[in-house]
Parts: sequence; C-alpha cells; structure tokens
Amino acid sequence: MKFSPPHGSYAVIFTSLRTDGEGGYNAMAERMVELAAEQPGFLGVRSARGDDGLGITVSYWDSLQAIAAWRAHVEHRPAREQGRAQWYAYYELQVVKVERAYSWSAEAGSADPMTE
Amino acid sequence: MKFSPPHGSYAVIFTSLRTDGEGGYNAMAERMVELAAEQPGFLGVRSARGDDGLGITVSYWDSLQAIAAWRAHVEHRPAREQGRAQWYAYYELQVVKVERAYSWSAEAGSADPMTE
Repeated sequence: MKFSPPHGSYAVIFTSLRTDGEGGYNAMAERMVELAAEQPGFLGVRSARGDDGLGITVSYWDSLQAIAAWRAHVEHRPAREQGRAQWYAYYELQVVKVERAYSWSAEAGSADPMTE
Repeated sequence: MKFSPPHGSYAVIFTSLRTDGEGGYNAMAERMVELAAEQPGFLGVRSARGDDGLGITVSYWDSLQAIAAWRAHVEHRPAREQGRAQWYAYYELQVVKVERAYSWSAEAGSADPMTE
C-alpha cells in the first residue's frame, strides 16, 4: 500500500472541482485510472475527493515522455473534453519532478526516507 | 480561486490515511493550514479527503528553503509527532519541483497555460 516514487521520477497533480450531477463521471474516472495503470512508465496513483467536490489526483510516471504519451492516448482525450464540457467547474494541473520522497506507516513504526 | 504555481516553484505532496476517531485532528489540521499560509515563501495550498479516509494535501512554496523553514517551525513539529502517534495509519510525502502548470475554468472557457 505504501508508495514512494523514485528520485527523478515525475508526477501530475490534477486538482479539480466537480460540477453537480454524476453524468457518467465515476465510470469514466475509474476507467481512466485503470487505463493509466496499463501505460508504459506508470508508477502509481493516489486520489481523494471531499464532500465539497474538490478532488486531487496525483499520478506518478518514470519520465516526461510517459506523461506525454498518456496525454495523447486515444481514450484519454475525449475524457478530458467531457471533463471540460460537463464534469468540472475548474481544474488545475501541474507536471512536477520528484526531488525527495518519504513514507511512514504505523506498522513499520519509523520514517522511511527511501530516496534521500 | 484558480491557482497556478510559477515555474520553478516547489510543492509538498502529503498523502495520508487517517485512523478512526477525531481526537483533535480537525482543529490541528486547520491551524496548520492557517500557520503555513503565514510563512515566508508560501504560495498556496489544496486539500481533499474522501470518505475512505485517504487525503491529499499539496502545499506550494517559492523555494526549498521555505519548505525547510516550515518543516522546522516550532508549532509544526509537535503536530507531526501527534500525527504519527495518533492520527495517521500511514503517510507518503514528496517534495517536488513544478515543471509546468495549467489551469482551466468553465467561466474562463479555455485552458490557461500560465507557465509553459
């Protein structure tokens, strides 16, 4: 369950505010995560959305090329277009480079600076 | 409301799974956001937590020095310790550098590649 992306990997931070109404959103979101996980260079994904409609999804990739290829995927583009037309009031997206990563769990009991 | 961090800024991605029980968590989380926003170099913060207990908070900073100073803040350290002792089953933390940032809103109607 715990996950630490390697130093030098990349992430896409996608923050979005949902509009009201389901309109097929959940099925599409689930499909996009499933599809992303099949792409070359995919490392992992984390996602959370609160009751206020604000959600953050962070996907992790081994290179900028992998991110560009996922962006160009034939099923990804219509999903983005429907997102703008229907599902999102706004979104913010950043492509970022991982400089340092840590993880900790109550079970393991101590910090785990994997890529310092 | 919309926010795009400048190219060359940094972010801290904090992903956590909450334990059961409130135990003062919400007040502390609110205080930490309030306090972070007062620190030099703070640019913005986004946060979401779903019903499954998984949350993601992304804070944006103008430098690694600003992140290090926030980490060393006298009120931040006991909050982290209580997080490990009580509030979190696990967490993952990455320090990342912003390479590209976009934002879009239904009102504005088109993508806004602020820092390409």
